[in-house]
Amino acid sequence: MKGNCVVAQSGGPTAVINASACGVIQEALKSPDITGVYAAHNGILGILNEALFDLGKEDPADIEGLKTTPSAALGSCRYKVKTEEDYGKILAVFKKFGVRYFFYIGGNDSMDTADKVNRLARREGYEFRAMGVPKTIDNDLAFTDHCPGYGSVIKYLATMVMEAGRDTEALYTADTVNVIEAMGRNAGWIAAGTALAKRSEEDAPHIILLPEVPFDPEAFKDRVNHYLKTIRRCVIVVSEGTKNPDGTYISEQKGQFAKDSFGHVQLGGAANYIKALVESEVKVKARFAIPSTIQRAGAHFASLTDSQEAYETGRQAVRLAVAGESGKMVTLVRESDAPYRWSTGLADLSQVANGEKYFPKEWIGADGFSVTEGFLRYAWPLIQGEVPVPIEGGLPRYIRFKKHFVKSA
Amino acid sequence: MKGNCVVAQSGGPTAVINASACGVIQEALKSPDITGVYAAHNGILGILNEALFDLGKEDPADIEGLKTTPSAALGSCRYKVKTEEDYGKILAVFKKFGVRYFFYIGGNDSMDTADKVNRLARREGYEFRAMGVPKTIDNDLAFTDHCPGYGSVIKYLATMVMEAGRDTEALYTADTVNVIEAMGRNAGWIAAGTALAKRSEEDAPHIILLPEVPFDPEAFKDRVNHYLKTIRRCVIVVSEGTKNPDGTYISEQKGQFAKDSFGHVQLGGAANYIKALVESEVKVKARFAIPSTIQRAGAHFASLTDSQEAYETGRQAVRLAVAGESGKMVTLVRESDAPYRWSTGLADLSQVANGEKYFPKEWIGADGFSVTEGFLRYAWPLIQGEVPVPIEGGLPRYIRFKKHFVKSA
Repeated sequence: MKGNCVVAQSGGPTAVINASACGVIQEALKSPDITGVYAAHNGILGILNEALFDLGKEDPADIEGLKTTPSAALGSCRYKVKTEEDYGKILAVFKKFGVRYFFYIGGNDSMDTADKVNRLARREGYEFRAMGVPKTIDNDLAFTDHCPGYGSVIKYLATMVMEAGRDTEALYTADTVNVIEAMGRNAGWIAAGTALAKRSEEDAPHIILLPEVPFDPEAFKDRVNHYLKTIRRCVIVVSEGTKNPDGTYISEQKGQFAKDSFGHVQLGGAANYIKALVESEVKVKARFAIPSTIQRAGAHFASLTDSQEAYETGRQAVRLAVAGESGKMVTLVRESDAPYRWSTGLADLSQVANGEKYFPKEWIGADGFSVTEGFLRYAWPLIQGEVPVPIEGGLPRYIRFKKHFVKSA
Repeated sequence: MKGNCVVAQSGGPTAVINASACGVIQEALKSPDITGVYAAHNGILGILNEALFDLGKEDPADIEGLKTTPSAALGSCRYKVKTEEDYGKILAVFKKFGVRYFFYIGGNDSMDTADKVNRLARREGYEFRAMGVPKTIDNDLAFTDHCPGYGSVIKYLATMVMEAGRDTEALYTADTVNVIEAMGRNAGWIAAGTALAKRSEEDAPHIILLPEVPFDPEAFKDRVNHYLKTIRRCVIVVSEGTKNPDGTYISEQKGQFAKDSFGHVQLGGAANYIKALVESEVKVKARFAIPSTIQRAGAHFASLTDSQEAYETGRQAVRLAVAGESGKMVTLVRESDAPYRWSTGLADLSQVANGEKYFPKEWIGADGFSVTEGFLRYAWPLIQGEVPVPIEGGLPRYIRFKKHFVKSA
């Protein structure tokens, strides 16, 4: 089937979502079936607003540069497609621009959107193929062993914890406790991944607070005191989604921006809360750090494995779509742990959209403040290798597209 | 003069303070005049507590590994030596352990301590040489062009701002403003250094708030709105020490830990304050990040220039002490900007102890929210080059000494 394609990125950026876009774009530009290769500027918003730019007019060196550029170079969004009107508009724009292939790089919500557009096209008898490419630092997509973006965020955050842990180790007589806040919403995947930094009892992180374990201040205090007694310091990684036993977040934000446009509660502040608790209850000085979006944008120390997998999921989405697939997300399949071997598979968009992969209870340590060897075996392969970034004047050089917007088909 | 030496590290760690220690240790181990090479565990506290460990018994590979290990591998402290009794004790310990050479790597307070011990030794007729090695991310030591530690902190923080800036660029329709908090206490050197990330109007940081410029909420709001109109987003770097026109910090901490043991007000929270201000006054969603000690511990992306300079200041301190110098700090002298050429010099410890290098007013941009080309010319050479860190299992491998403590001379 000949036609144009649209590639779009959605949701929170990652260090390697552009590597996935690179896989899609380079494969699409090579395909004789795909005529124009367009990017939607800012995800589904770019389709609704007819803001499509022509990737065929970009410098091939910039397209290659996607492999080392963090965040979403096509632009992203958090717009939730809800109405039939929106879906109708999306399909109308695709028809107007002669788009027969749609590659959506994102999480659950994006897979839901791609699925629904695909179904609508089928109902209307419009020949069309939609493929999903997985992306989320939160690692909570079902039907895939792990998600592109996850390996890089834990490699970088574990490095931050290791390095800040050395700072606390040197200054324990003054700054005795350090609390570092991990992203990940309601899943502990990212916080858990920082355990990779720990090679001995001396090493940070000493305590990991997961959203999956209701926060118990007494047990926590005991654990902090244990480390103060044995190694005279304590580095704590707290998930932004850590909750009290009653299900409320340990620190919720109030006011106008308390919820995002999806109705999700905005998190942040868990680290301040734990710092204040340590100072008032354990009576030692504590510091805190909130790396926030910095952790997911760290292309300068991304995982090569993650980057290669991200690229390949993008490339496979195009190859399979051209071969006739539609309504599917490309998944990552783990063939073996050691040596690590992987391949790609497929899952139905609708199943991915409605699934969620929780952090397995059996990977939570018996004390509730650590993770098991089983988890480490799972996570280890995902952070292997580094991606050298081009340096200009001592700092990374990242690409930015020129964005030649297209008028119509 | 033959005798043992003590090397100590003090204050907030940096990515390269261990490179300075490496310079001291490797040179001292080679010197026929220096017999035992001891480290004080946790700065001056290690001397007061007679906690000295023998660096001659450490693995030379670990000593070499100091060049790529962040934070203070000898241990650091924030203990302020105030009493004559303390100084007497320090000198007594030096005598007890046959210590004739003292190398103190630190900031103003450390130079003051080294100076006073040196004077006491002279008054008591004890042959002794004390040399200071500059260290501070804050870059506020007088009589040196810049301080080891500064180049690496701005290289890494500028990279964080660049990468998080790309995140905001991709998601401006949802997360429109991002506020990143820089360390640096009452000097704007670190926040200013993030301007290196800006290669075009599009690039972050868009606004820099310096402690040297009294915060003007109205002018700030106008500046944010300017960026929202022109590029639809705004990334703000705020110094932790940013102040209101009345001299109070824009966000001061209260309570038991409001001041550290030096009586300095504990900072942090400037970013939250600016985020809240943007949301309530500009009415767009803002995020914030507080990298805290992570920014000063980033050995995985340290500046090679900074690392080499740090090493050389340590090495020179030993060479000059053995040649007869005492009561001096090794300084960095800039010979030329482009090509960058530097050498080392000397300054009196007492002068350094009482000096402070402010961020020059003429390097603040006319709008009060930026820095000048003159500053960029100053800062640029300091971030050049990278220091490859050894990797083990996908994460940096940093050294930790075995610490064979010595009983007495």
